[in-house]
Amino acid sequence: MSVKASIITIGDELLIGQVIDTNSAVIAQLLNGIGISVSLRLAVGDDKVNILDALNTAESQSDIIIITGGLGPTADDITKPLLCEYFGGTLIENKEARENVISIFTKANRPVTERNLTQALVPDVCTMLLNVRGTAPGMLFRKNNKVYFSLPGVPHEMNGLMQSHVLPYLYDHYPLQVIAHRTMTTAGIPESSIADHIKSFEEALPHYIKLAYLPNYGLVRLRLTGTGNSISDINTRLDQQFSELQSLLKDHIVSNRDETMQETVARLLQQQNKTLGTAESCTGGYIAHLVTSMAGSSNYYLGSVVSYANSVKHDILNVSQESLDTVGAVSEPVVIDMVNGILNRLKTDYAIATSGIMGPGGGTDTKPVGTVWVAVGNKNKIVTQCFKLRYERQKNIEVTAIYALNLLRKFMVENN
Amino acid sequence: MSVKASIITIGDELLIGQVIDTNSAVIAQLLNGIGISVSLRLAVGDDKVNILDALNTAESQSDIIIITGGLGPTADDITKPLLCEYFGGTLIENKEARENVISIFTKANRPVTERNLTQALVPDVCTMLLNVRGTAPGMLFRKNNKVYFSLPGVPHEMNGLMQSHVLPYLYDHYPLQVIAHRTMTTAGIPESSIADHIKSFEEALPHYIKLAYLPNYGLVRLRLTGTGNSISDINTRLDQQFSELQSLLKDHIVSNRDETMQETVARLLQQQNKTLGTAESCTGGYIAHLVTSMAGSSNYYLGSVVSYANSVKHDILNVSQESLDTVGAVSEPVVIDMVNGILNRLKTDYAIATSGIMGPGGGTDTKPVGTVWVAVGNKNKIVTQCFKLRYERQKNIEVTAIYALNLLRKFMVENN
Repeated sequence: MSVKASIITIGDELLIGQVIDTNSAVIAQLLNGIGISVSLRLAVGDDKVNILDALNTAESQSDIIIITGGLGPTADDITKPLLCEYFGGTLIENKEARENVISIFTKANRPVTERNLTQALVPDVCTMLLNVRGTAPGMLFRKNNKVYFSLPGVPHEMNGLMQSHVLPYLYDHYPLQVIAHRTMTTAGIPESSIADHIKSFEEALPHYIKLAYLPNYGLVRLRLTGTGNSISDINTRLDQQFSELQSLLKDHIVSNRDETMQETVARLLQQQNKTLGTAESCTGGYIAHLVTSMAGSSNYYLGSVVSYANSVKHDILNVSQESLDTVGAVSEPVVIDMVNGILNRLKTDYAIATSGIMGPGGGTDTKPVGTVWVAVGNKNKIVTQCFKLRYERQKNIEVTAIYALNLLRKFMVENN
Repeated sequence: MSVKASIITIGDELLIGQVIDTNSAVIAQLLNGIGISVSLRLAVGDDKVNILDALNTAESQSDIIIITGGLGPTADDITKPLLCEYFGGTLIENKEARENVISIFTKANRPVTERNLTQALVPDVCTMLLNVRGTAPGMLFRKNNKVYFSLPGVPHEMNGLMQSHVLPYLYDHYPLQVIAHRTMTTAGIPESSIADHIKSFEEALPHYIKLAYLPNYGLVRLRLTGTGNSISDINTRLDQQFSELQSLLKDHIVSNRDETMQETVARLLQQQNKTLGTAESCTGGYIAHLVTSMAGSSNYYLGSVVSYANSVKHDILNVSQESLDTVGAVSEPVVIDMVNGILNRLKTDYAIATSGIMGPGGGTDTKPVGTVWVAVGNKNKIVTQCFKLRYERQKNIEVTAIYALNLLRKFMVENN
């Protein structure tokens, strides 16, 4: 039997698009990791009728219902009274939850108000789930062989309760099937060509292994998902299919793991015991951000000069003033100078440089918006590439960062 | 009559949490902007039964159903045949869509395959919506007084079709109510204290104006939403309530617009005609990224030295080696040196510096994970602040960036 879950996210801010729902993705990942598949995600506003509709829809399709949001201390929250009514209970104060509220306010040196203490009220028909990261407790309800978890919407608190209470409970109470994935990333080949190329492989896949295409601006991730009762059995069969897929696509594979481009580059840097620095004009620090978001990046990443202004390119990176004046900042000579500037200044083994026009303004006839020069190299060799991107500003920045990291990846593999 | 919409997002990747759903937020924002409220968002996998269930749920609750995803060229896409069946049509080739596919491949110098051309097939019962940004066309269906739009899942293409086809169609075909918002951001006061402070204001709000609290790590945004028939009427009433709210919270307001912290800082820089540079250790380029994500930022932002390694702090920013050796990089003297280093090197009017321990590793007894020093200033004055954060790495980086920008905002207001 496969156990199915639904996720309900509550909050008006989701329906006017003011906030992007990351909670659902995190919950789905965590459930998937213990073999529970999510069949439905719903988002509704702070509205009694809509929340009840969502509960009815979710419970008709799943065994486990996870609700987040709508538990804050202010008056726009109607979830707790509604759940109380739905499960036929009465709100009572939970001693442990009350102590938790008081302890959090005491630590922060803030007085506890009556309103804060109402957070400790929970329906008497639920099991209170202690939220040590915040004042709103989680709640567990059971009804008609289905189980319901209500969690606060603050991502950090939701995540804590998933780890401390929800996952252990589900693990103990359900006979779970095993789900495993194998993911690879390809570059330089469009989704449709991959599909043509691996048509017979795909058609011959057994029913318990599914293939998904996840294209994203020049890169296509391919994911095999296997489901079964024995983890070793599933792993063996997945590995078999995955190695066949690898040999079919060997000329296009960037990475044969489920890792981001910056994780691939970080892995190579560590394997080669080398360091990296960046000189960013158009990416404006985004490459540095991607790299430094990874724990331990200080072992191989020394820093970046975000040379947004030409004066910074010249003064700190020693970019030729003549190049800036004649061919302009978005040019091959300038990104080459920027790579050399970083290698000299920061004394790193490798360097990346970017310069381009991200839009919406700044384009000219010869250098329209989307024109980007990237250079990567070490003290012996520098390679460059010019891209013509066609997205809006934010996406142009992101795509440039990924392309630049991919150019470095190739360089590191070929020039080690 | 208020017109209601539902959004259905299709794709297995959403249900295993591999991808965060940004499309729903964008669609919700766009609909909201023309007075259509979204009452439900659903996400389902590439599964026929679940997609049909979602269609049934959505159409029972709304007049307009917007579907994204599931239209790519590869075999895991089942949406188009399903819609064809659901609306009782037959797939036929659309000439305009075919020419669009060929034109896109010709421009990219790629051969057009049979598989690519299947993108031009659409149900004969739909109106084809030309997608100039990609090969998968949009589709418009009508049934039982309801209207359905099916759009590709690539954000850039979805957005293009919303603007070029969906919004104009809805605007022409529905008698729309007006929705308007007023948003302010507060700092330094918790959600529950705000709620206590403005209790009588909130209770006295008319039924057509709603108040929402949007707390986010130290900042609380407050949003008033008004609905009605006349935009001028709604604006007058909203402005009235909003100015009352402003006077109630005047000591805590960071901004009385719906703008991000970086937008507030950018606005102040432009008003004062001043420039900014940053020296980032623990934020690793994230402040630079936030600032340069805004179009036109080159007018006031010169750049950043992401001094992740101590050698970069010393060599480029002239941070005292003695301070680094004795009190360490995460200290007040070091962030002060970093601010001075940027002011001298980049010749900016203002500078921000950050240094901290973002985790999960690197903490000590005296400087646990989450310890952050921030300095901001100009050539006459520098102010510093030490924060003790308690989140995971990524969130620590984001929160530090926002706190640092907020510290600069205060400094700019007080020291202009």
